[in-house]
Amino acid sequence: MGAADFMTHPGARRLQALRCQGGVASVVGDDVADEVPVALQFNGISHAVMLATPLDLEDFAYGFSLSEGLVDHANDIHDLEIEAVDRGVVVHVEIASRCLTRLKERRRTLAGRTGCGLCGTESLAHALPRCDRRVAPMALEASSVACALAAMRAHQVLQGATGATHAAAWCGPSGELWRLREDVGRHNALDKLIGALARGRVDASAGFFAVTSRASYEMVQKTVRAGVGTLAAISAPTALAVDTAQEAGLCLIGFARGRDWMAYSAASRLNITPLAA
Amino acid sequence: MGAADFMTHPGARRLQALRCQGGVASVVGDDVADEVPVALQFNGISHAVMLATPLDLEDFAYGFSLSEGLVDHANDIHDLEIEAVDRGVVVHVEIASRCLTRLKERRRTLAGRTGCGLCGTESLAHALPRCDRRVAPMALEASSVACALAAMRAHQVLQGATGATHAAAWCGPSGELWRLREDVGRHNALDKLIGALARGRVDASAGFFAVTSRASYEMVQKTVRAGVGTLAAISAPTALAVDTAQEAGLCLIGFARGRDWMAYSAASRLNITPLAA
Repeated sequence: MGAADFMTHPGARRLQALRCQGGVASVVGDDVADEVPVALQFNGISHAVMLATPLDLEDFAYGFSLSEGLVDHANDIHDLEIEAVDRGVVVHVEIASRCLTRLKERRRTLAGRTGCGLCGTESLAHALPRCDRRVAPMALEASSVACALAAMRAHQVLQGATGATHAAAWCGPSGELWRLREDVGRHNALDKLIGALARGRVDASAGFFAVTSRASYEMVQKTVRAGVGTLAAISAPTALAVDTAQEAGLCLIGFARGRDWMAYSAASRLNITPLAA
Repeated sequence: MGAADFMTHPGARRLQALRCQGGVASVVGDDVADEVPVALQFNGISHAVMLATPLDLEDFAYGFSLSEGLVDHANDIHDLEIEAVDRGVVVHVEIASRCLTRLKERRRTLAGRTGCGLCGTESLAHALPRCDRRVAPMALEASSVACALAAMRAHQVLQGATGATHAAAWCGPSGELWRLREDVGRHNALDKLIGALARGRVDASAGFFAVTSRASYEMVQKTVRAGVGTLAAISAPTALAVDTAQEAGLCLIGFARGRDWMAYSAASRLNITPLAA
């Protein structure tokens, strides 16, 4: 960030832009969301670089580690340090030696014997693990999703400033907003939420997740790994997300807008009286 | 896909869902977008697995290879074969030996001497290369973006069916729709578009890109690498996208909705008369 920039909101920067409105152009100040490469390092081993909003990075590191199965529990993370570097951020994570051994083993398998990678089919199996867990959706009032979405809108501060960020929220059975995280990436927002819950040692299964994005395979996978039984997304699910949700017993809700929504799996947990089609 | 499923549109599948509308629930058929792991293999070396819409995969392979700098030109791709496997697709790409040597060298550097990865800072530099190219935005009428967006909506067939896909389009100076590609991932949609242009050996710089998503760093980077001088996005840009666009000379337009939009860089190429702020 240049010296001339001033912060308008953490995670945003004010820039000058040319606005064209109704055919008339003017130069205006505009708040734009930061997007920063975040390198995640485990016991000194660089694992991944993600482009993310540089807020709540402790939560992000916890959530990413859990979602990716690098650690099994928040207690497996022994230390965490955030280092700002020239063009990004390095997050140094110290994980339990048991987890580190597993991570090294996984990297060796991935690198292959000749350093030339695996056959495509093996890569696919690695990229798309079978759902290894089942979850139990909570009973939910039909109106809870609408309440949750309304509460989320009021708390999406960065989205309000920039229009560029997604949010993921953990909500109570009646739609109460319990936790919310924002990020330029929808996967990151969900990882940050999962990390925040893990760091707080709360029982995530007591609530449901609501996200402002679509529900793709990875969003479902992260939710199931976090032990949460219901995922409500504002936009559409993919077919693979529906398949995965059905396998895992997750209640997957899409197109959640106001009081209306579509349920694609485990809909029996929703407290409504279905009519015949 | 199970035998009971029937295709409604290539890239979509009809599922049963529970619709709750105005407090009334009913079981309905719903078209959901396919999302499939696609493994990209270069001369037998697995390189990446992407979750994507299983359409236009030749375009995707060309665009991905070019965007990632694995090849310099479409002619560097000598052969391409698509293989459906159990739970996904493997795309076998044969690239020129010069490109393969470079790819192997890059993989060796990434793997590091001890197989333990790089320090985080080096990883960051790799993830966020300095913009290596400059582009020249074309002169554009202020109304061209609106025309392009309207034309796109009419041609987003998969989005119309599923509500789950992004589109990237290549448009002429007056907003004529020249090419459009769809995908569940916005980066994939843009890579497919870039690949389609490369396979057609057309001069991409003769038009501009319009996308139905936000403009993040990677979207800008792909556009610049493709030699296209203007990128118009329906939603917000990130600060890093604006920085990168300014470095590369790209005209970056965000919040393109109807006749209104915001220009974040190289706005002088837009044919309007700016008023003082």
